[in-house]
Amino acid sequence: MSVGLQFGNQPGLYLGSQPGLMQSPYMRPFSVIQLRLQACRSFVTESNSSSKDHNPNSPPSPPRRRILFSRLLTLSKYTLYLSLTSVVGLIVLTSFLFIHDLFTYTSRHVDRVPINPLALHLERGGPKNLPIARVLVDDDEDEDMHRIARDKPRLVVVGGGWGAMGVLQTLHLGDYHVTVVSNETFTTFTPLLPSAAVGTVQVRSLIEPIRKIVARLRGHFLNGKAVDVDFNQRLLEVECIGNGERVYIPYDKLVIAVGSTSSTHGVPGLDHCFQLKTIADAQAIRRRIMDNFEAASLPTTSPSERRRLLSFVVCGGGPTGVETAAEIYDFCQEDIMNYFPKICREEVSIHVIQSREHILNTYSEAISRYAEDKFGRDGVHLITSARVAAVSPEHVIYTAKGEDGKMAQHTIPTNFTLWSTGIAMNPFAKRVTDLLPNQVHKKAIEVDAHLRVKGTPQGTVYAVGDAATIETSLVSHFLEFVEEADKNKDGKIDFEEWEVMVDRIKKKIPMAEDHVLKAREIFTMYDKNGDNTLELNELVKLLEDLGSKITSLPATAQVASQQGKYIGRKFNKLARTREREEQKLGRVQADTASTPSAITVKDPQESMIDISDESICAPFRYLHLGSLAYIGNAAVFDLGKYSFMGGLAAMYAWRSVYWNEQVSMRTRALLMIDWIVRGVWGRDLSRL
Amino acid sequence: MSVGLQFGNQPGLYLGSQPGLMQSPYMRPFSVIQLRLQACRSFVTESNSSSKDHNPNSPPSPPRRRILFSRLLTLSKYTLYLSLTSVVGLIVLTSFLFIHDLFTYTSRHVDRVPINPLALHLERGGPKNLPIARVLVDDDEDEDMHRIARDKPRLVVVGGGWGAMGVLQTLHLGDYHVTVVSNETFTTFTPLLPSAAVGTVQVRSLIEPIRKIVARLRGHFLNGKAVDVDFNQRLLEVECIGNGERVYIPYDKLVIAVGSTSSTHGVPGLDHCFQLKTIADAQAIRRRIMDNFEAASLPTTSPSERRRLLSFVVCGGGPTGVETAAEIYDFCQEDIMNYFPKICREEVSIHVIQSREHILNTYSEAISRYAEDKFGRDGVHLITSARVAAVSPEHVIYTAKGEDGKMAQHTIPTNFTLWSTGIAMNPFAKRVTDLLPNQVHKKAIEVDAHLRVKGTPQGTVYAVGDAATIETSLVSHFLEFVEEADKNKDGKIDFEEWEVMVDRIKKKIPMAEDHVLKAREIFTMYDKNGDNTLELNELVKLLEDLGSKITSLPATAQVASQQGKYIGRKFNKLARTREREEQKLGRVQADTASTPSAITVKDPQESMIDISDESICAPFRYLHLGSLAYIGNAAVFDLGKYSFMGGLAAMYAWRSVYWNEQVSMRTRALLMIDWIVRGVWGRDLSRL
Repeated sequence: MSVGLQFGNQPGLYLGSQPGLMQSPYMRPFSVIQLRLQACRSFVTESNSSSKDHNPNSPPSPPRRRILFSRLLTLSKYTLYLSLTSVVGLIVLTSFLFIHDLFTYTSRHVDRVPINPLALHLERGGPKNLPIARVLVDDDEDEDMHRIARDKPRLVVVGGGWGAMGVLQTLHLGDYHVTVVSNETFTTFTPLLPSAAVGTVQVRSLIEPIRKIVARLRGHFLNGKAVDVDFNQRLLEVECIGNGERVYIPYDKLVIAVGSTSSTHGVPGLDHCFQLKTIADAQAIRRRIMDNFEAASLPTTSPSERRRLLSFVVCGGGPTGVETAAEIYDFCQEDIMNYFPKICREEVSIHVIQSREHILNTYSEAISRYAEDKFGRDGVHLITSARVAAVSPEHVIYTAKGEDGKMAQHTIPTNFTLWSTGIAMNPFAKRVTDLLPNQVHKKAIEVDAHLRVKGTPQGTVYAVGDAATIETSLVSHFLEFVEEADKNKDGKIDFEEWEVMVDRIKKKIPMAEDHVLKAREIFTMYDKNGDNTLELNELVKLLEDLGSKITSLPATAQVASQQGKYIGRKFNKLARTREREEQKLGRVQADTASTPSAITVKDPQESMIDISDESICAPFRYLHLGSLAYIGNAAVFDLGKYSFMGGLAAMYAWRSVYWNEQVSMRTRALLMIDWIVRGVWGRDLSRL
Repeated sequence: MSVGLQFGNQPGLYLGSQPGLMQSPYMRPFSVIQLRLQACRSFVTESNSSSKDHNPNSPPSPPRRRILFSRLLTLSKYTLYLSLTSVVGLIVLTSFLFIHDLFTYTSRHVDRVPINPLALHLERGGPKNLPIARVLVDDDEDEDMHRIARDKPRLVVVGGGWGAMGVLQTLHLGDYHVTVVSNETFTTFTPLLPSAAVGTVQVRSLIEPIRKIVARLRGHFLNGKAVDVDFNQRLLEVECIGNGERVYIPYDKLVIAVGSTSSTHGVPGLDHCFQLKTIADAQAIRRRIMDNFEAASLPTTSPSERRRLLSFVVCGGGPTGVETAAEIYDFCQEDIMNYFPKICREEVSIHVIQSREHILNTYSEAISRYAEDKFGRDGVHLITSARVAAVSPEHVIYTAKGEDGKMAQHTIPTNFTLWSTGIAMNPFAKRVTDLLPNQVHKKAIEVDAHLRVKGTPQGTVYAVGDAATIETSLVSHFLEFVEEADKNKDGKIDFEEWEVMVDRIKKKIPMAEDHVLKAREIFTMYDKNGDNTLELNELVKLLEDLGSKITSLPATAQVASQQGKYIGRKFNKLARTREREEQKLGRVQADTASTPSAITVKDPQESMIDISDESICAPFRYLHLGSLAYIGNAAVFDLGKYSFMGGLAAMYAWRSVYWNEQVSMRTRALLMIDWIVRGVWGRDLSRL
């Protein structure tokens, strides 16, 4: 790794084909040190020549030059010392790693694995008479995992995104028999997908195998797609990926974290667009971008065709769209410029089509303006208050107001269109809402303030993230509110009762809190006849208006992650409480006697003591930590109260925020490496 | 990066989901130091608990424990010091990189690029009247590149493998107008493909964009497939990738380095096999391996199906096959074991089918034996002296001698078959041999000792690597040999003349050298009638026998690379000589006057002065530096005279050899990182 770093202070220098350096033998400290010496020297000359005031053609006066040079010499001396220090350290660390290899390169052999016959021959059952996986092949494979599996409520998490990770990372080991069902084998750090789409970071630096994450909980991973569910028998129907067979996974608690898909807004030809929701998307985009540049540099490509190949259209001025546009711009500036025919760089055009007046319209106004100015300087073509009319492989058609104020239709010839706006329901989420009569929301599964899916048996099914939306309707709780508040049962609500009701409302729907602060004002406002009591019709009106004021949470990673963590903490508490209850009931677990098959013979219900979510923890509260976005060698932060924006410094802040949010040290290390490699050698231009 | 390293001394410990560590803020030395402290402590406990003699249930006698512990404390203390040193160094280096970013994140804009109109509107011509790319879009883009382009002979290299890299890396800047035509945009470090196939290293660590390599020569890259060539008009016909259009690339010197494809040996169903020649192959294999393991851990998978999914068959016991088998074994041992159901690890079976008696049969006997023993210990199933009869998606059928000595047919159910034996001609190489009447070789283009393609105009077309084979037939030169040797023109060769002829033979076909050492013996042996002269019929017999003794060079990276470098050096010499000649002829280049279009109006011929290859350099000699192979936590080296084999130490030797052969510092750094990351966190289990 030392070798990877040592050219850091030679801007843009490419050492690939210098025979001298190519022979530098590996792990031979001296030569490395010599290399570093070279590095430092060339740093001196570098900065020397890069100092503006000094022009090679007319050499400056000797004294000034000597001072400058001596300064640089001292600098280089310190550089050398510090570099040496690091070499020593690195060599030591590396040798540690090599010693460590001695342990990892094992030739141990597995002795017969204990395996429950029921796991090999699944009994069939359930509404569709499919095999039911009550015991999994790895349930009994080691003794303590077995102990964990036995008698524990079965927690099944559907999905492998932010919500699911939130749950898995907050759960304690041993409270639940955890099974994760996901069609992807890894979890993705979605916020950096735009960077991955142009190769600023590698896709593998953004993903962590779900198996490694469930390993901490001794959990199980199933590579499958949830297709259906039976809420009464508590069976999740999973279509296995690979053999396509269907199987029931029994659950005591089900967490739905399947995320969302992009909505088409009924625009024709959206299948010609790229999306940026998965790693596969990022890879496809990167391949297309490289294709375009390679094709554009071919001798047979006509000038007009070249312009089409090099025009990149992004539909949607939200963070994803803006960041992708910015990354593409960076890519052209820093890498295409140096290695592709210059004509390619010259012909590049980047267009961002936004339906609102401003890009990043969810951010503060200052930020939108800053981003727009930045793009203005960079020559990124912003098209605001415009609607995309149609997309074809050859071009994008949009309508926008012209100078004359009339709506006019425009066409951009392009070979790359990214669609990054709007979300729609994932098929499984859709299926769930279809199964439940009182699910009316169009874009997500409605959950109550405790994130329980409305209409399912209490405390069994939860939904988080993009897949879920917290109910904001107060009227639907009208009766219970009156019930609880109307002490004197006179069918009217006087102010004291109203105050009680406000408390209830706050408890039930925390998001309503800000809207009922001025209890007195609201009361008087809706007390039309001024008899200092609210008749029920007045109350209905009031609740309706309040409900309409509440805005639902955005579909962001931040929300999903917080909801997941909330569920995880809740389940931990539940487990603790249940244990206490069980001890109270004197139910002592027979740790030795019961056989593995005990799991199957005993009814999952039995081990469950009904503990309502309300009794153990408060409803979910979203704490907005602010939003940030990368806009090309600059970044913007919207921290609610105040916002912060700037160049490189902000960019590093942006990086370090994301760096901290990583799910594992591994991805942290890889990200850091990617950023450094990009700094030293630029992005990889290979089309893979 | 410091954070990436600091867990090196905690074997197998996965820190991904420890909330405490996850929050460790980036680039804050103190907390990093604390982490390191933790690391050291846990290292103490680690090794403490891992010490065999000490069993947790019965604690050992206090004094021994205390001694051990104090020792470990001191050890950890030094670890700490050294780690600190490295942190300091790393922080410094990283900050340098961040300063350096200030330079790389540029917002410079391109001013109008000078471009030759002829590059935008190609004239048509040639036998098929296709556009001819005499001027490329980036020929004039900067002044000195322009100067290089003008008047220089046009060197066109077809292919982007070892041969091509050899040429490009030895050429001097400015002697030729270089154009590389390749269907892949990058060059691949093929020897490590088996490692990439299981994720020991990342595919991106094995590739380097060809553009970056030609950049040093201010050369051009064309993403296309060579399909045809006109040797008289010196036009290479290229099918552009992307738009699929065809274009002629004019050349003065053409180097064919297109490599080879796998031969089918006429075995039915080989399209169900994987190959391992390209990055795409490696990616496909990795995906399949992960698919198999995921499918094998599904609850719906039957035991027999699981066994089939987890049986990996490798056809061919050469280095590639052996290394792939070894890597798959490593992968199971080190990663599958830890994160997949243990039953999966238990059911894994790896089979190597080899046609000869031994695997690695091109290596020394000791090495074959060592490898076979190693595989024996690892439980890798070796099937030697066996022929693959047929391959289907479900199984592989092979025939082998049973105990009873009779040939019997066997079937291995499998979902993964790698075909890694035999090479066949690449389509373009095939086309070339079809064009040339005197090309008789079945598997490659025949070239003379100077690597000139036989039958093409002298000094215009060369072939290297797998695509080429050096002629070994002496008889074909019978007449010129006699011509040169038979001084007294008596149609007989006496011994003096024979000695002359031997010199000629050595010069013409260096590979024959070893066979004509004992000139006297050979002479007498073939001088049947003992009249101390060789009649022509005797001579013919002699030359035929000699020729048949010569074995052609193996199709290895080593050969290709050496041949490429040979061509590169030759071309450098040619350029020097030509310059001298031109100065002699008083042809002074008009550096200022001529316009860009000068390139096209002047006939490429003109600038060429015929200089025969013989006159400037000796024929190509292959110097075998030895072969090596990785066989799973062990490696073997065959250095001709003696061979060397062993465990980890040898493995590191193996690594460092390949590490040195990298084409760029970038890939070196990435490889090093991959090896370390694998050491610390294991391989990535994500299916991508």
